[in-house]
Amino acid sequence: MTLSMYQASVPVFARTLGNLAKIMEKAEAYAAARKIHPSVLITDRLAPDMLPFSSQVQLAADTCVRGAARLAGVDFPSNPDVETTFGELQERLAKSAAFLKSLSEAQIDGGEERIVTLKLRDGEMTFTGQDFLLNFALPNFFFHVTAAYLILRHNGVDLGKMDYLGLR
Amino acid sequence: MTLSMYQASVPVFARTLGNLAKIMEKAEAYAAARKIHPSVLITDRLAPDMLPFSSQVQLAADTCVRGAARLAGVDFPSNPDVETTFGELQERLAKSAAFLKSLSEAQIDGGEERIVTLKLRDGEMTFTGQDFLLNFALPNFFFHVTAAYLILRHNGVDLGKMDYLGLR
Repeated sequence: MTLSMYQASVPVFARTLGNLAKIMEKAEAYAAARKIHPSVLITDRLAPDMLPFSSQVQLAADTCVRGAARLAGVDFPSNPDVETTFGELQERLAKSAAFLKSLSEAQIDGGEERIVTLKLRDGEMTFTGQDFLLNFALPNFFFHVTAAYLILRHNGVDLGKMDYLGLR
Repeated sequence: MTLSMYQASVPVFARTLGNLAKIMEKAEAYAAARKIHPSVLITDRLAPDMLPFSSQVQLAADTCVRGAARLAGVDFPSNPDVETTFGELQERLAKSAAFLKSLSEAQIDGGEERIVTLKLRDGEMTFTGQDFLLNFALPNFFFHVTAAYLILRHNGVDLGKMDYLGLR
């Protein structure tokens, strides 16, 4: 096995989305056991000008769907941010995982020098494929998964690093 | 440029440590401007059973120093966790960046199948080099950098995602 653009993106994204899905199952069970309305967790945020849990999950999903699509040079599906329950957020993750599964190694491998252009609020940013993967897509993806995890930890959900890493 | 084990580790770690150093500069300036004792930020944590800011920075440093050393198959320096000020934490990051700089591409490239063994509290874990990098070292590293960033955001420090990504 040699490291490739595909190996460093799609399976990493897919595995971590799976970890996030299990983390959400634990959060839902925690809320049920304590008679906390799930929306208390789903709408919580770590600072007034930060996005809530639901958005962190949606962004984790988008970062990897869009990131992988950009690396493959294909269009990405439009996923409106409408989820307000754990069940809907789980469906969003499942849909995102299915999209990742639809991409082949051949579409992504060799794309180190492919030009990736991002439209941001204050203009465009251009990367090579490799730079985009290592310095934008992966850090951004792990940021949103970690933010989702930390909002739950901040609310007392019984989680540990091994849940985040998918090692238990 | 072809993706390699070195490219996917050392420069990514080094760049992100630099981003974290700048984030800490902003936090220190924020504390000074508001006459908040720096230790208020440095000792804060997002849950009573989570590690404080200082530990998140120390772990970000350790994750990349130890991760890169394991990928290279070399010993890593022992860095006792003694830092209690922004200045000392900056030194820790600088020392970690210097260690990363001491590693060559030749030491790390081709290590996809090298066996990496981790001693954890509850036993040993064994990975291939590629699996260790993608599913342990990188996610763990970004976790601790994000946790440090979010503790500061939670305390009102004026930071944005572009600071985390190093794009401003």
